[in-house]
Amino acid sequence: VQGTLEQAIGQISGVPIRVHGAGRTDTGVHASGQVVHFDATWSLPTESLASALNVLLPPDLAVRDAEEASVEFHARFDATSRTYRYAVLNRPSRSALLARFAHHERRPLDVVKMAEGARELIGSHDFAAFGAPEEPGRSTVRTVDRFAVRKHRDAVLVSVRGNAFLRSQVRAMVGTLLLVGREKLRPDDVRRIRQSRSRANCPALAPAKGLCLVRVDYDGIRFGARGIEENEDLFGQAE
Amino acid sequence: VQGTLEQAIGQISGVPIRVHGAGRTDTGVHASGQVVHFDATWSLPTESLASALNVLLPPDLAVRDAEEASVEFHARFDATSRTYRYAVLNRPSRSALLARFAHHERRPLDVVKMAEGARELIGSHDFAAFGAPEEPGRSTVRTVDRFAVRKHRDAVLVSVRGNAFLRSQVRAMVGTLLLVGREKLRPDDVRRIRQSRSRANCPALAPAKGLCLVRVDYDGIRFGARGIEENEDLFGQAE
Repeated sequence: VQGTLEQAIGQISGVPIRVHGAGRTDTGVHASGQVVHFDATWSLPTESLASALNVLLPPDLAVRDAEEASVEFHARFDATSRTYRYAVLNRPSRSALLARFAHHERRPLDVVKMAEGARELIGSHDFAAFGAPEEPGRSTVRTVDRFAVRKHRDAVLVSVRGNAFLRSQVRAMVGTLLLVGREKLRPDDVRRIRQSRSRANCPALAPAKGLCLVRVDYDGIRFGARGIEENEDLFGQAE
Repeated sequence: VQGTLEQAIGQISGVPIRVHGAGRTDTGVHASGQVVHFDATWSLPTESLASALNVLLPPDLAVRDAEEASVEFHARFDATSRTYRYAVLNRPSRSALLARFAHHERRPLDVVKMAEGARELIGSHDFAAFGAPEEPGRSTVRTVDRFAVRKHRDAVLVSVRGNAFLRSQVRAMVGTLLLVGREKLRPDDVRRIRQSRSRANCPALAPAKGLCLVRVDYDGIRFGARGIEENEDLFGQAE
């Protein structure tokens, strides 16, 4: 995604441009609320930048909006929180339409127990058991301030917000909660795994395709007029 | 879709099987509520048929449920109504996540006028201006008993229910209403086009990807326990 976007912006600007995204998304992970910035000197009107880029970009990559920011603004370092949504289709039969957007779990999940387990992950903790820092040796302490698990019709929707996340942290936390939902682990096992600070104790990564970066927040900045946030909506209203 | 499904059922049964679907779906059109039947003599338990088929079918084709029907049941001839949903993303920027599931119209649509135009298509009418019968020379009279147009956040959602539809009828009716929404046609032009009974007067087909067959109904038969009807939900709650 980053390379494709840089190529399109480079095509418009005439010089190579480096973009900086607020949140990494591994292969197969979706993003409906990603924020990126880049530095450029040009005379193009910002209002038409999004539509110009959307002509150049492939169908599965789109720019919602573009606006000028202060020269100090950094999409990644200035972000105060990231919100991810994980979607599980929890019914016997799989879905053709949601195949790329939800993980399918045919065995019934105990949502109450999953929510109990999720509470063990709220707060400022060392999350080393669930992921690695960008650079080896850096802090593995992160703050999760919201971790909700709810049932919506045939789906189980997990929503997690934190100041930042380690590599694979969200998929590792959700993978652990899925085992709680299947009663392979107890909710308080989640705390024990976290406290172990060892990746070896993390039982599973949830598949990438269920994950979506839905929102990035900044102090005092509100991006555009957000309309339908698609992935929030794939399974109905955002909570 | 039909060929792929027949191949999978044939693989399970050991003999070639012909399936009959309730509603045709052209290339690019989706279906979340299609119903098919087939005749077979075998000793397999019906309960496990759906999961056996889902193992053989590609990710973009799935069986929700399978059950035994009376020997007289015909998915197409016994259907009393079909419901299609047409989804338009109506905002300046396109969407990467909905690229395959919604038609993108950047110019604002007048939903009130579209609904007014839609009312001209409710009732038993000759719809020859909007489509062709399966076989040349057959009746082009169909009954539309519901035609709703509503705005939901950034989307315009069209829902149409009828006893049956001519080839391309839904896309032709929606294509006409989209021109009403853009004020290229007036709502009462829709009646004039219908009354002309001539395909030459149908101004446009809406692109296939926005269309989804969401439901087929039968007298006195209720299929399975319907859970999340995905496409009903792509843009939020079904109305």
